[in-house]
Amino acid sequence: MIPSEVLAAVRLVVFDFDGVFTDNTVIVSQDGTESVRCWRSDGLGLSRLAAAGVPACIVSTEKNPVVSVRAAKLRIECRQGVDDKAQAVLELCRDKGVDPRHAAFVGNDINDIPAFGVVGVPIAVADAYPEVLPHAPHRTTRPGGLGAVREVCDGIVAARQKHLPGA
Amino acid sequence: MIPSEVLAAVRLVVFDFDGVFTDNTVIVSQDGTESVRCWRSDGLGLSRLAAAGVPACIVSTEKNPVVSVRAAKLRIECRQGVDDKAQAVLELCRDKGVDPRHAAFVGNDINDIPAFGVVGVPIAVADAYPEVLPHAPHRTTRPGGLGAVREVCDGIVAARQKHLPGA
Amino acid sequence: MIPSEVLAAVRLVVFDFDGVFTDNTVIVSQDGTESVRCWRSDGLGLSRLAAAGVPACIVSTEKNPVVSVRAAKLRIECRQGVDDKAQAVLELCRDKGVDPRHAAFVGNDINDIPAFGVVGVPIAVADAYPEVLPHAPHRTTRPGGLGAVREVCDGIVAARQKHLPGA
Amino acid sequence: MIPSEVLAAVRLVVFDFDGVFTDNTVIVSQDGTESVRCWRSDGLGLSRLAAAGVPACIVSTEKNPVVSVRAAKLRIECRQGVDDKAQAVLELCRDKGVDPRHAAFVGNDINDIPAFGVVGVPIAVADAYPEVLPHAPHRTTRPGGLGAVREVCDGIVAARQKHLPGA
Repeated sequence: MIPSEVLAAVRLVVFDFDGVFTDNTVIVSQDGTESVRCWRSDGLGLSRLAAAGVPACIVSTEKNPVVSVRAAKLRIECRQGVDDKAQAVLELCRDKGVDPRHAAFVGNDINDIPAFGVVGVPIAVADAYPEVLPHAPHRTTRPGGLGAVREVCDGIVAARQKHLPGA
Repeated sequence: MIPSEVLAAVRLVVFDFDGVFTDNTVIVSQDGTESVRCWRSDGLGLSRLAAAGVPACIVSTEKNPVVSVRAAKLRIECRQGVDDKAQAVLELCRDKGVDPRHAAFVGNDINDIPAFGVVGVPIAVADAYPEVLPHAPHRTTRPGGLGAVREVCDGIVAARQKHLPGA
Repeated sequence: MIPSEVLAAVRLVVFDFDGVFTDNTVIVSQDGTESVRCWRSDGLGLSRLAAAGVPACIVSTEKNPVVSVRAAKLRIECRQGVDDKAQAVLELCRDKGVDPRHAAFVGNDINDIPAFGVVGVPIAVADAYPEVLPHAPHRTTRPGGLGAVREVCDGIVAARQKHLPGA
Repeated sequence: MIPSEVLAAVRLVVFDFDGVFTDNTVIVSQDGTESVRCWRSDGLGLSRLAAAGVPACIVSTEKNPVVSVRAAKLRIECRQGVDDKAQAVLELCRDKGVDPRHAAFVGNDINDIPAFGVVGVPIAVADAYPEVLPHAPHRTTRPGGLGAVREVCDGIVAARQKHLPGA
């Protein structure tokens, strides 16, 4: 469990896509079409996060349109084909006027380590690669694609209600 | 296990869709097509339930046609894009002439809590979100999308045979 | 493990489809297309079974063409949309000139019970519904769709090599 | 864990496809289209392996284009519809100018046994068929399609950094 005083301070959440919104598998069809397996209940969490006034974005190195398609359904911003996730996170912070110390980044693999390094609240999903754990002190209890996104959203919303009762 | 005297009294079963008929994942293709993973043996359970004279319906907030497509294959009624599930359940009870105290609702997430509150037999699937459990005293042993629907159907049919031998 | 002296006597194997060749889930797309999840290594087992001279067939109540499509890829006979599996099994035995006492039937659900009753070697998959177990004394160690078919094929081939060295 | 001194000597990695790049299931659609479930993070491992100068290839008996489609996305060489994997591995070694004693082969099923026999570093995935284990002294900790390929790549890259610091 991530301490609620940590989550209450979050003003922006940036998510990696594969392994966070998905179970890190990709279904490849014989014509090359890619599909990913997502968690239906993430939508409810993201709606409540938006209602609480906390913006959420996806930043992914993957170029396949499945990333933007899922982001569109969930009505959250998305930057894909990103080579330098840390820079993308910092740009998002600037665009949103959020101090990176108040930003969370949720990831699962070693190419997320630089992005973990630039935010105040680095969060690894439950089934992240072990190599990333030293770089992400916070961790979800649910795996990617099976509730991790919803858990982060619920945690932030609940923390704000507890610590920012006037919010 | 849900007590058979409880199940014997059920005259209408209303099911949530995602997380009940499915394992709560959604497979998203790069063209935006959505697919869900269902349990083949649910069909046999619903046929027996229908043969026992107990109507079943799906009520879902999800708007994607995958919900009605699955309902059509299973030959059960479906109302989707529903914002207020409790109201939809009460309308179904009125349409079927069933006292809500004799209706069951099967759900998995917090947006099912109001619907649990209006029926006599609230049932959570085995892998429901913990927050819903205080609102649903009954619980399946099988998870959503992996036998929960079939289990509810089988339970009702068996309970009727035991408690209503003349039925 | 099924005793090899039992398997050595098998002259025909009839398989149910859903829950045997598949993990009993069905992936439903928003346009109504159905897909199932099968085990790649079943093909190797069925090839060896055919090479040993033991015919294999699929008998399924399901009408969706996904059944015949999979059977065609595996080059085995298939009868689908079958209401009475026991009768279909007996017809197959007659067509192949095999005494039903030397036929195996592999199933997973209660609608397989009549077919279990007419063959000499009734086999339930590891994750079959508990209600069928009294009707199928033999059981695979692997679940349906995850190696059960391959296991039955390998078992028969190995049993024939052991007990019928001249075969 | 595979000893790093073994992995440091690898100059070519040949992978079987089904059960290694995939979880050994195949999703079959009602029109006959096949899809497989792969691990998103394999791509990062293969990129690092290529950067380290170690070529990787896929050799598969399967003829469905899903194999070459996945290989193309991962930018690795692929030979499919191969009946004799051992011969294909030896040809690849000759083409790349690699002594087979410095080649690794990663497989999961009994038709991989001949290929295991011709390379210096035979590796079975964590969930390989037990019959292959006597032929493959090395074994991944992750199953096929869920990180096995990435693990082999990471292991070789790390071993080279440790044992070949000048590489």
